[in-house]
Amino acid sequence: MTESLYRGRTTRDWQAADAAHFLHPFTDFKALAARGARIVTRGEGIYLWDSEGQRIFDAMSGLWCVNVGYRQQPLIDAATRQMQELPFYNAFFQTSTPPAIELAELLAELAPPQFQHVFFAGSGSESNDTIVRMVRRYWALMGQPQRQVIISRWNGYHGSTMAGASLGGMPGMHEQGGLPIPGIVHIHQPHWWEHGRRLGLSREQFGLQAAQWLEDKILEVGPENVAAFIGEPVQGAGGVIVPPESYWPEIQRICDRYGILLVSDEVITGFGRTGQWFGCERFGTRPDLITFAKGVTSGYVPLGGVMVGQRVAQVLIEKGGEFTHGYTYSGHPVACAVGVANLRLIRELKLVERVRDETGPYMAELYRQLQEHPLVGEVQSCGLMGALTLVRDKGTNEPFAPEIDIAMVCRGHCFGNGLIMRAVGDRMIVAPPLVVTRAQLDEMAALIQRCLDLTLADATRNGWL
Amino acid sequence: MTESLYRGRTTRDWQAADAAHFLHPFTDFKALAARGARIVTRGEGIYLWDSEGQRIFDAMSGLWCVNVGYRQQPLIDAATRQMQELPFYNAFFQTSTPPAIELAELLAELAPPQFQHVFFAGSGSESNDTIVRMVRRYWALMGQPQRQVIISRWNGYHGSTMAGASLGGMPGMHEQGGLPIPGIVHIHQPHWWEHGRRLGLSREQFGLQAAQWLEDKILEVGPENVAAFIGEPVQGAGGVIVPPESYWPEIQRICDRYGILLVSDEVITGFGRTGQWFGCERFGTRPDLITFAKGVTSGYVPLGGVMVGQRVAQVLIEKGGEFTHGYTYSGHPVACAVGVANLRLIRELKLVERVRDETGPYMAELYRQLQEHPLVGEVQSCGLMGALTLVRDKGTNEPFAPEIDIAMVCRGHCFGNGLIMRAVGDRMIVAPPLVVTRAQLDEMAALIQRCLDLTLADATRNGWL
Repeated sequence: MTESLYRGRTTRDWQAADAAHFLHPFTDFKALAARGARIVTRGEGIYLWDSEGQRIFDAMSGLWCVNVGYRQQPLIDAATRQMQELPFYNAFFQTSTPPAIELAELLAELAPPQFQHVFFAGSGSESNDTIVRMVRRYWALMGQPQRQVIISRWNGYHGSTMAGASLGGMPGMHEQGGLPIPGIVHIHQPHWWEHGRRLGLSREQFGLQAAQWLEDKILEVGPENVAAFIGEPVQGAGGVIVPPESYWPEIQRICDRYGILLVSDEVITGFGRTGQWFGCERFGTRPDLITFAKGVTSGYVPLGGVMVGQRVAQVLIEKGGEFTHGYTYSGHPVACAVGVANLRLIRELKLVERVRDETGPYMAELYRQLQEHPLVGEVQSCGLMGALTLVRDKGTNEPFAPEIDIAMVCRGHCFGNGLIMRAVGDRMIVAPPLVVTRAQLDEMAALIQRCLDLTLADATRNGWL
Repeated sequence: MTESLYRGRTTRDWQAADAAHFLHPFTDFKALAARGARIVTRGEGIYLWDSEGQRIFDAMSGLWCVNVGYRQQPLIDAATRQMQELPFYNAFFQTSTPPAIELAELLAELAPPQFQHVFFAGSGSESNDTIVRMVRRYWALMGQPQRQVIISRWNGYHGSTMAGASLGGMPGMHEQGGLPIPGIVHIHQPHWWEHGRRLGLSREQFGLQAAQWLEDKILEVGPENVAAFIGEPVQGAGGVIVPPESYWPEIQRICDRYGILLVSDEVITGFGRTGQWFGCERFGTRPDLITFAKGVTSGYVPLGGVMVGQRVAQVLIEKGGEFTHGYTYSGHPVACAVGVANLRLIRELKLVERVRDETGPYMAELYRQLQEHPLVGEVQSCGLMGALTLVRDKGTNEPFAPEIDIAMVCRGHCFGNGLIMRAVGDRMIVAPPLVVTRAQLDEMAALIQRCLDLTLADATRNGWL
């Protein structure tokens, strides 16, 4: 372990300054100030270290983004070199920069063949926000300006701008700030455990049923008013909800039938996470638009964007005139240079193939073993994303009483045992860096096992079972 | 001049790849592809170089952001060191990182005393978008949930997300994608040349009149329904509209009278641009919220945020519970480390004082001389922002015929003569890096003079006068 850059301040100092000045995202500020934040100071590979010197297994890749792991020299070198050369220039003034062009070329090469153009943004939120104006603009240019409505799913996540949070289906977000904005409607998610099981359907039957909800909504809104459907191939923040295999092909069929644009939000699933470069390839759809962020730079520098398929690109280019949209940092040269280095590294290390052929299947096997645990009702995994549903009674799959936040109890044990695993409702989720090895996945599974055991001991001791 | 990182490709190669894959922000894609983008490859100080080796005086600081100029080693070193240490970690999981805490502390030190807290975002768009949910959340917690309406100005600019573009008052943006979203209303801008002159008012009289439009709108909407007023101290993208001195104090008085939150959008005016750390200090307001981006990192790494004044922060912290909003890159450690290095450098080089006492006044003097030019009707400057209004007839200040885009003609000459100056309507605007010297301002003024002369020659030759 190298010396920290940030010596001379104690954890308590950092926590006090943090509480005094930093309003954290998605946080109860007062509660965090009372408890004190954990100060993460260093990362290497798949591990983090905090200001107390504790080593932490980062099974969430930062926040679904550090695909190549921490401290990857090629990305650091790319950033440093580009900063020396040209740390910023805009792409507004009829000007371009080599790294933005190189990244656009590389993305066009890696994405499915219908994608030849990129519109850059700075984050997943900005990318999804862009979708709303872009699909409406497309339909206006096609002479169907009444096609304004975008359909998305409850418990989907598409970012935190007003439009992004409106596309998302998180009620807790809609409650703050007057959301959703008009023209966005939601259908239920393809979550067999929550919906299909109760309907008595098999997973595959349920996948078709969940897709049917899209057709029902299209007919309710009127197909002539629907611009697009947006969804994450696998819902991430919603709890790693892996849809039945029957779902996405049926969604594609329905979009085709009504001529509706299909948008694949690949902010989490892009760049190898599912064992393919893009999640749409894993699930067999042909989207018209792909949004991306996170893994494109492994999070080293903020970057996002929209891959614009030929169907939309040709209309915007040929008929559109000026598209009155964009961001100062659209095509940021340092971000793009890091993106190029990152994608080349993913390709060079064959991380996508490794997730598909080796680590993804191996994690699935480990998860099948974890399903034996008395607290675990369901496991799901897809590539290097995994979820465990915690239940009170493994026989009946009955959940814990609503007042017991069992996943937060489990997360507390993870925190204390040097593992970052995220709690979403009653699901514990992971998405480790794509550089993770089999041996490290064993270590992760052992840590998960220990934390489940400790959670079970709490549940037993406290009479929650 | 060092060797370029990007050798081995010709300008034509870059342009072809650019046209094939990169959809530029705020651009007519087809027209740009036909013409070919200028490829900017390198920067140093206030100068850029393109792929043809032409040196360019960057009088727009990239895009209002490269406050400390290009190739500043302290910023590059800060980024490299932080990437080695910890290239990313999130602030969602009850965790924090030293650079985010340090930047929050430093911003609290530099901002007016009512600001002790920062909410980080990734761009100016995300920051202004955050404002909508934050001010509505504030009023909901204050027991006045009907206070939903935000008032802003026509020809203001607050970013390009759906909410940001709605806050902005750019009709060309509102026309694409179904904007504005509900609950945002606009008043006229404090632009004496456009409005005040025709009303026969002095600048100071007009400033009061323009502020009165706010009070009129508040009374029309109902004060009990108004959450906030947002404005840029000096409108940037709108054309460097410097308001009369009487305007902002009257706006403050009106906000105070009705208890309405005042939001100062300092994405452009923050961090020294006006000769104060923040534009609100230059114009004498006490905002409740400040949005920032661009100059906070001099654009080297994307970063934005909201400074949250005590009035709002105390309510969110004490009564709010979880604020269900935030971005993956909120508090990005590399962006924040660069922000700290950048703000320390601005302080160390005394750039704010230099703009206030030396370069700002000197640029104003040069602009007074440019006002003598036959094409120039009005000049305005504030710190290191400047605007020239081009007119057909200097005696009557009559504009050119609508079909003649005289500013674009002038911009073409700037392009050919190695000067970046931006055209907005009939205004030519600049905002050079804060490190610019007097000698370099002389160079800039001489370049502007030459481009005006060439534009005048075109106008004479083509019979536009």
